[in-house]
Amino acid sequence: MSSFLLHVAVQPSSVGPPMRAARYLRRGPQLPRADFQLRPVPSGFAPQEQEYQQALLLVVALAGLGLGLSLIFIAVYLIRFCCCRPPEPPGAKSPPPGGGCVTWSCIAALLVGCTGIGIGFYGNSETSDGVSQLSSALRHANHTLTAIDHLVLEMVERLDEAVRTELTTLEEVLTQRTELVAATRGARRQAEAVAQQLQGLAFWQGVPLSPVQVAEDVSFVEEYRAMNNESCLSHGGRTNKKCMNEILSVRWWLAYVLLLLLELLVCLFTLLGLAKQSRWLVIVMTVMSLLVLVLSWGSMGLEAATAVGLSDFCSSPDTYILNLTREETGLGSDILNYYFLCNQAVSNPFQQRLTLSQRALANIHSQLQGLEREAVPQFPSAQKPLLSLEETLNVTEGNFHQLVALLHCRGLHKDYGAALRGLCEDALEGLLYLLLFSLLSAGALATALCSLPRAWALFPPRNPSASCSGSHLSEPFLHARLEPVPHLRSFPSCRRRPH
Amino acid sequence: MSSFLLHVAVQPSSVGPPMRAARYLRRGPQLPRADFQLRPVPSGFAPQEQEYQQALLLVVALAGLGLGLSLIFIAVYLIRFCCCRPPEPPGAKSPPPGGGCVTWSCIAALLVGCTGIGIGFYGNSETSDGVSQLSSALRHANHTLTAIDHLVLEMVERLDEAVRTELTTLEEVLTQRTELVAATRGARRQAEAVAQQLQGLAFWQGVPLSPVQVAEDVSFVEEYRAMNNESCLSHGGRTNKKCMNEILSVRWWLAYVLLLLLELLVCLFTLLGLAKQSRWLVIVMTVMSLLVLVLSWGSMGLEAATAVGLSDFCSSPDTYILNLTREETGLGSDILNYYFLCNQAVSNPFQQRLTLSQRALANIHSQLQGLEREAVPQFPSAQKPLLSLEETLNVTEGNFHQLVALLHCRGLHKDYGAALRGLCEDALEGLLYLLLFSLLSAGALATALCSLPRAWALFPPRNPSASCSGSHLSEPFLHARLEPVPHLRSFPSCRRRPH
Repeated sequence: MSSFLLHVAVQPSSVGPPMRAARYLRRGPQLPRADFQLRPVPSGFAPQEQEYQQALLLVVALAGLGLGLSLIFIAVYLIRFCCCRPPEPPGAKSPPPGGGCVTWSCIAALLVGCTGIGIGFYGNSETSDGVSQLSSALRHANHTLTAIDHLVLEMVERLDEAVRTELTTLEEVLTQRTELVAATRGARRQAEAVAQQLQGLAFWQGVPLSPVQVAEDVSFVEEYRAMNNESCLSHGGRTNKKCMNEILSVRWWLAYVLLLLLELLVCLFTLLGLAKQSRWLVIVMTVMSLLVLVLSWGSMGLEAATAVGLSDFCSSPDTYILNLTREETGLGSDILNYYFLCNQAVSNPFQQRLTLSQRALANIHSQLQGLEREAVPQFPSAQKPLLSLEETLNVTEGNFHQLVALLHCRGLHKDYGAALRGLCEDALEGLLYLLLFSLLSAGALATALCSLPRAWALFPPRNPSASCSGSHLSEPFLHARLEPVPHLRSFPSCRRRPH
Repeated sequence: MSSFLLHVAVQPSSVGPPMRAARYLRRGPQLPRADFQLRPVPSGFAPQEQEYQQALLLVVALAGLGLGLSLIFIAVYLIRFCCCRPPEPPGAKSPPPGGGCVTWSCIAALLVGCTGIGIGFYGNSETSDGVSQLSSALRHANHTLTAIDHLVLEMVERLDEAVRTELTTLEEVLTQRTELVAATRGARRQAEAVAQQLQGLAFWQGVPLSPVQVAEDVSFVEEYRAMNNESCLSHGGRTNKKCMNEILSVRWWLAYVLLLLLELLVCLFTLLGLAKQSRWLVIVMTVMSLLVLVLSWGSMGLEAATAVGLSDFCSSPDTYILNLTREETGLGSDILNYYFLCNQAVSNPFQQRLTLSQRALANIHSQLQGLEREAVPQFPSAQKPLLSLEETLNVTEGNFHQLVALLHCRGLHKDYGAALRGLCEDALEGLLYLLLFSLLSAGALATALCSLPRAWALFPPRNPSASCSGSHLSEPFLHARLEPVPHLRSFPSCRRRPH
C-alpha cells in the first residue's frame, strides 16, 4: 500500500526543473551528522572530505551497535529462559503456559520476515530500475555528445573537400573573368569560415570524461554480466583495477539476491520445521537465523550509509555535479550552465557561432546563385562543379539543422533530469525499501530467535528436562517413528487462560 | 526473484528503435483468438472490430468458466466431506487423521495468498508506473508541440511588428535615395517571406487531437484525484461523459486497492481465527474468502483480456498508432513518418521551409548591414530603426535555432519511445504480475475454502457430531471461558503416521 501511495506522489516531471516531487524522500534523512569525535558535521554532500566519510562510517557503526544490542538481548533472554526458569515438578506432562502463543508469535515473526523479503525484492527491483535509468540516460547523453562531434567532423570534411575540389575547378574554369573568380574566392572564404566556426562547436572533443564510461561503471551495480576473464587478465594497470571493481560489484549484487533468498529459505524451512515438529530442522534454522540476523544488520548499515549519502547528494545535486563536471572536463561555465540549467535566463553559448555559420552558408548560397546566373551561359563546364557545390551546400544545411537540434540544451538537459530522477527518486526509494526490509527482517529474526528455542522445547520430548542439553540432536526424525501421542487438540492455541 | 531477472532483461533502450527488449512479454500471449462461434480471429490489434471485441470477451468468459469449475469443485468436496464421511463411533475423542495437516495446508494456502498479494501490490505499482510514464511522455510531447506553435506565433508577430514600424520608418527616412528604399523594400519582402514560411511550420495548429487530453484520460487510471463535482455538474454534453469516465476510472482504481486490502485482511483474520480457534471468525472468513474468490476470478478475466489486447497492440504499435494519428489529426504522411520513425531514411519534411527562412534571414541581415554602411552617414535618424531591426533579427535568429531544435524529430520521437515503453514494458509487466496475483489468490482461496470447514470441524467442540450444523455459531467466544483441555501436544503436526 505504501508503495502505491508513494508512487502516486512521485509524479515524474519531465518538463521544467528536473524534479519537483519526492523532495520528502531526499529531505527526509537530514539527521544531524557527526564524525568519530561526535562533533557535528555539515550535511552537504562532500564524499572526498574525511569528516564526511567519518560521518557515513558512523552511520554504519550505529548498525553495528544495533546488532550488538540485539545479540545481547537475545542472549540474556535465552539464558534466562534456559537456566533460570523454575524447576519443573518431575513427571509434569503439561508444557509451560503460553506454549501455543510461542509458536504463533514465531509464525507471526516469520510472516513479518516474509513481508520484509517481499519489500526487499521490491526495493532491489526499484534500485535496479533507478540505476538502469541513470545508466540509460548517461548512454543517451554520450550518444548526443558523440553525434555532435561526428556531425561537425563530417560537415568540416565535406566543406574542405568542396573547397579543395569543386571551388578550385571553378576558379580554373572561370579564370578569364576576374569578377567571377573574385566571387568564387568569396565563396571559398565563406566556406573556410563556416568550417572554422563549426570546429568550435564540437565542444566535447578531447574531453577526458566519457558518460558511457560512467554508465558502464554504474551498470555493474545493476546487472550481472558474464565476466570476460581473458580481457581482465590480458590487460594491466588501470584495466585490472576496473576488473577488480567489476568483480566486487557483481559480488555485491549477487550477495543481495542471495541474502534475500537465504532469508526466504530460512523462513520457509523454519515453518516446515514447526509443522513437522522436527527439532533438528528448527535448531539448524535457529543457527541460520542468527547468521541472517548478522547479515541483515550489516546490510542495514550499508544501506543507511548509502541512503544518507545519496540524500545529501540529492538535496542539491546541481551545484555538486556542476563543480565536478567543470573539474573533470575543463569546460567553460557558460556551456555547463546552459546544459545544466537550460532555462530562459541562460543564453545559448553557441548562438554567435551558429548565427555566423548560418549567415555564411546563406552567403555561399547567394554567391553560387549569382555564379550560376552569370557564368554558366558563358562557361558550360562550370555547371557541373556548381551543381555539385549546391548539393554539398544543401546537405550541409540539413546537417546544420541537425547540429542546431543536437546542440540545443533540451535533449542533454532531459537526459540529466532523467539520470537525476533515476538516482534520486527510484534508486533512493529502492534503498529506503531495502532499509525497511533490513529493519523488518532484523526485528522478525530477533523475535524468531527468542521464540524458536522456547518452541522446540515444547516439542513432544523423550526427556523434557533435557530440552536445553541438545540430547536429541542426533536423532532428528526419531519421533516420527514413535507411536502417535494421543492428542485432544490439534492446533496451537493462543487463547486467554482462566486464572 | 522473477521480477529482478525480468528487470535485468528489460534494459531500456532510449536510442534507436523504441524497444528492443521485452519482446517476449509482448509475443508471449500470442494464443489463438476466437470469436463467439469459436472461429479463429486474426491476432492483430483492432479494437473497433466486432470479432476482435468478441475474442477479448471470450477471454473474460474463460475466467468465468474457471470460477464456475472451481466453485463446483469446492462444493463437491465439501458436500462429500460433510455428508458422506464414515459415521464416527460415539464418544470418540480423536479427530479424523490428518487434522494437523489440514491446518498447515490452510496456513500454507494463506501464505501463498499473501505472496500473491505482495505480487499484486508490485504489479499495481508497476502498472501505475507505466501509465504514469506514458502520461508524462504525452504531456512532454504536448509541451513541445505547443512550444512550436507559440514560438512560431511569437516570431511571426515580431517580424510583422518590425515590418509595420521600423521598416516603414526607415522607408520614410530614406525616401530621397531610391536605391536605399529598394533595399529596404527588399528586406521587407524577405521578412514577409520568412513570416510566411514560419507559419507553415506550426504544423500542430488547429489539430483537434491534444496529447495532454490523452494524458489526462490516461492518468485517471493511474491516480486518484479529488473529483471536482461542481465542474462535472455545471457542464453538459461531452463533459458529462468525461466526468462519467473519470468516476468509473477512479472507482476501478479504488476497487483494485480495496480488493488487495480485502484479501490481505481475509488472510490475516483467517490466521487469527485459526490461532484463537475462533469458529465464528473462521466461518465469517470462509464466507469472505468465497467473496474474494469470485472477485479474484473476475479481476483475472479483466486482466487477461487487457493483457491480451495490450500484447496485440504492443506487437506492432507503430502501424496502428500511425494510422490512428493520421485519421485523428489529418496530418500528412511525411510529417508523421518523420516523427514516428526518426531515422536517416526519412528526411525532415520542414527542411525546405527551414532552409528558405534561414537564407531569407541571412539576406535581411546583409541588407541591413549594407543600409547601415550606406545610409547612416547621410541619414543619422536611420540609425535607431536600423539598430532596433538588428536587435529583432538577432532575437529571431535565436528563436529560429530553438525552433529548429523543437521541430527536429529527436525530442518527439523520444517521447513516443518513452510512452510506448511505459505502456508495453512497465504497464504490461504490471498487468502480468496482477494476473499472477489473481491466479495465486484464486488457487490459495480455493484451497483455503476446502480446508477451512475441515479445520473448524477440528476445533474442540461441545458436540463433535454437530460440527456441520453450525450449532456453535451463536457463542463464538464461549470456549475461551471453558476449562483448558489437558493437552500433550501444542502444535499442529503433519508427520507421517505409522500404519
